[in-house]
Amino acid sequence: MKRQTSAILIAVLMTVSSSPNDASAPNKTWHLDLAYSVFLRTQQQAVVKEFNALLAIPNAAGDLAALEQNARVIERLLQRREFATQIWRDHSRPPVVFGERKTRRPARTLLLYAHYDGQPVDVRQWHSDPWKPMLLDAPREEGGREIPISGPWPAGQTGEWRLYGRSTADDKAPIAALLAALDFIESRRLQLSVNLKLIIEGEEEAGSPHLPAILEAHKEQLAADGMLLCDGPVHQSRRPQLLFGARGMAEVEMTVYGPNRPLHSGHYGNWAPNPAALLAGLLSRMRDAEGKILIPGFYDDVRPLSATERQTLADIPSADVELRREYGLAWSEAENAPLNERILLPALNVRGLEAGHTGSLAENAVPAEARASIDFRLVPEQTPEGVRRQVEDFISGQGFHVVHDPPDEPTRLAYPRLIRMQWGPGYLPARTDMEISFSRAVSGTLENGMNVKMVRQPSVGGSIPMRLFSDTLNVPVICLPIANHDNRQHGPDENLRLQNLWEGIRMFAILLTDLGKQWR
Amino acid sequence: MKRQTSAILIAVLMTVSSSPNDASAPNKTWHLDLAYSVFLRTQQQAVVKEFNALLAIPNAAGDLAALEQNARVIERLLQRREFATQIWRDHSRPPVVFGERKTRRPARTLLLYAHYDGQPVDVRQWHSDPWKPMLLDAPREEGGREIPISGPWPAGQTGEWRLYGRSTADDKAPIAALLAALDFIESRRLQLSVNLKLIIEGEEEAGSPHLPAILEAHKEQLAADGMLLCDGPVHQSRRPQLLFGARGMAEVEMTVYGPNRPLHSGHYGNWAPNPAALLAGLLSRMRDAEGKILIPGFYDDVRPLSATERQTLADIPSADVELRREYGLAWSEAENAPLNERILLPALNVRGLEAGHTGSLAENAVPAEARASIDFRLVPEQTPEGVRRQVEDFISGQGFHVVHDPPDEPTRLAYPRLIRMQWGPGYLPARTDMEISFSRAVSGTLENGMNVKMVRQPSVGGSIPMRLFSDTLNVPVICLPIANHDNRQHGPDENLRLQNLWEGIRMFAILLTDLGKQWR
Repeated sequence: MKRQTSAILIAVLMTVSSSPNDASAPNKTWHLDLAYSVFLRTQQQAVVKEFNALLAIPNAAGDLAALEQNARVIERLLQRREFATQIWRDHSRPPVVFGERKTRRPARTLLLYAHYDGQPVDVRQWHSDPWKPMLLDAPREEGGREIPISGPWPAGQTGEWRLYGRSTADDKAPIAALLAALDFIESRRLQLSVNLKLIIEGEEEAGSPHLPAILEAHKEQLAADGMLLCDGPVHQSRRPQLLFGARGMAEVEMTVYGPNRPLHSGHYGNWAPNPAALLAGLLSRMRDAEGKILIPGFYDDVRPLSATERQTLADIPSADVELRREYGLAWSEAENAPLNERILLPALNVRGLEAGHTGSLAENAVPAEARASIDFRLVPEQTPEGVRRQVEDFISGQGFHVVHDPPDEPTRLAYPRLIRMQWGPGYLPARTDMEISFSRAVSGTLENGMNVKMVRQPSVGGSIPMRLFSDTLNVPVICLPIANHDNRQHGPDENLRLQNLWEGIRMFAILLTDLGKQWR
Repeated sequence: MKRQTSAILIAVLMTVSSSPNDASAPNKTWHLDLAYSVFLRTQQQAVVKEFNALLAIPNAAGDLAALEQNARVIERLLQRREFATQIWRDHSRPPVVFGERKTRRPARTLLLYAHYDGQPVDVRQWHSDPWKPMLLDAPREEGGREIPISGPWPAGQTGEWRLYGRSTADDKAPIAALLAALDFIESRRLQLSVNLKLIIEGEEEAGSPHLPAILEAHKEQLAADGMLLCDGPVHQSRRPQLLFGARGMAEVEMTVYGPNRPLHSGHYGNWAPNPAALLAGLLSRMRDAEGKILIPGFYDDVRPLSATERQTLADIPSADVELRREYGLAWSEAENAPLNERILLPALNVRGLEAGHTGSLAENAVPAEARASIDFRLVPEQTPEGVRRQVEDFISGQGFHVVHDPPDEPTRLAYPRLIRMQWGPGYLPARTDMEISFSRAVSGTLENGMNVKMVRQPSVGGSIPMRLFSDTLNVPVICLPIANHDNRQHGPDENLRLQNLWEGIRMFAILLTDLGKQWR
């Protein structure tokens, strides 16, 4: 999941043997809690050692040989756990690993997704080799000391230990957790309550360009009753969370044209039209300072929240005050409206402005053009096509002639206000109904088993391609993250907090053994 | 003069022996016209050869040894023409050459300014060595063929020949023209009608950082009754022009702050304040699309045009239609109001915008800050200080807390709208009264002598430091350019059209011999 980590430290210390406590938590316990504590106590080092071997294989996008090796190793790890596996590929790109393990009784089929590729690394910024994982007994910035992964471990709690390395969190953590959960289940000779299918890809950080074709080609084999997309971090409160949707996206580059070359601002300033001033004026009429989008009809397609969605919103812990402090903000948009509500609305984000030069490079010139880069975030039932139409209609109504290619000289001479709009492909927004059987079963099984109130988000603010899966495979999709929120995802010193690994194993074990019992 | 060349070609072909014709020209001729044609016919190659030697000395800013050599050579060229000279310097920077030549009778004193340094060159973009001047019999882009500077010249008109090399136009041309004019006067054993003082500096292209101290230190020696600032190009119509003023300037870098680091626009978009949107809104309230400045009171200090200024405006040839076509513009600001009028008003030019990234570098992030670089152009009686006050008052009134240094974290957390304003030193606007004796004498002498209606501009749009001279030396200043407008000033293939050199020599000869007769 392309997600920026938040570094808010909310110290919720959890021990290995006890579940997180929450005043509003369901008062039940998992029937295997004791067995799981024993498994963890005896097997935790073995789990980390097997994970270490997987992490030691480089996985930067573009390193085709290394990515291939990741896929082969994962395939073997699955085969060892009784999966029937296949390797799928489109052209010679990094392969998708498919695995399937059936349970003995008739049961629902659960599809899990994760990815084995990682973001590129700038080794100069890392404190250790990204592909030689290092274990510390506390976060590095808090003075954590190294623990040898294979040497003897000191006695005591390991939950706040951190494993440093590329993809410890994003996104090999769910793979490791699933494998260990299966080992636990095997060690107790338990039955899976669902048929299990896995799809583990190697091009997520590159935008999964070949995944749509692979899904389309194998949709019969991938048929499932529900899907968990395992990526991204848990809530900043360290409570486990389920994400039922994601905002869509419509990206556009806007270029407003002035003179065909920069003109001396002394000789031509306030005669030659200034494209930066024109662009600023246009943007100010598209969106106000509080984040409200002023384009007529822009909110018409927004689906109102359901009663359940509204209720879960109220249950999500607010981190607004801490977030504002963390990010140096005296306020947030819409008069400090809560983040959890804001991300359920569409957004117009100006992600970039460019015209002429600023600072020491500033030239006394009327710039030839001014650009704005915008990402709209969409919510159901908005579509990239609908937004494109609304935006271009609005801009035309503001007196601009809209083009999609660079204008030629006659076009420049014909239209006083000229703008080029370059749209990206966009994403559809996704929102899985929280009331359907799959949603209720996943929530209920985890809440009962973990003895904690899950954080249930109707939608994340970001744009994950949930619709790619739900539309191609006709399956409800929920996102279930494992990693700590402060994992430094995509950056140097990416790390996994071991407590998150232990809880991830536990969540998968609970789901695999109990989900089928609630899922009708 | 930091001035962008216009490339409009208005073919006004002029011959060496006849003056430019204009229907409205004064019907007089210079009493030395015939003598001057003879001088030119016999001496033109010698003039170019002496100029060539001066041009061959490199003069890029920073090349201290070469700049020093320029000054020494110019000093010798002046001494050979009976000037008492001095070399002035501030610290060890490129020196100022001062020269003085008194006439025998009591007379007014005229101070002339030029500079010998040139803009840096990118030799890869030049078609010939910038410091090995090359003479072509037509502009290079029109297929001009090389004429050997020292070899025999073909018979015929030389007016449309072009001399290529750094500073052929900006700003060694007036130096060469003045030297030749003095040679002509000497050849006829004529008297100067004025005492002549020269100040020729070597740091103009670097912004003349040491000139104020030098002027201050030598203001007694520089005392004069009138000053001609010889720099920049003549009018695009190829008619000679006098510029009586220049717009002032107030430069400011504006930085609006968002979160203290870029935040993922999916997760925090329309929650975290977007500084690019805030900046766009602010700019749109400071200036409209037609160039009108919306800051209250901004036009209060603008001095209305005098009757003479209004009259000269009407006399300036309009190039608006050609300029709009040349620059690919379907319109110009203020509903196509004429350029000549627009530059007599203040301007707010957005010379740069910067926030996040655009195009292929665009990231899905709320930028941490957004910057705009602005140059205000000022007219009498505006001042940089007054504009600064008005602008900051306005921005404060828009709810922004204005700081001048980077804000610390407590400041960020205290103020919802936070902007940093970094002001440059600015220039005062200059406007020399067109009715004073010096102005009338210069205009009248040149119009009578050249037999042409001069283009008289109350002000140029750009910002030349006329006020530095007029305020320090308490002298009226007029700008008298020599070079062709299409000289590619500051760029590769800078060139001087020989007709402009011949007319420049003639203008200096006229002024030196006749100015004192009209100047009371």
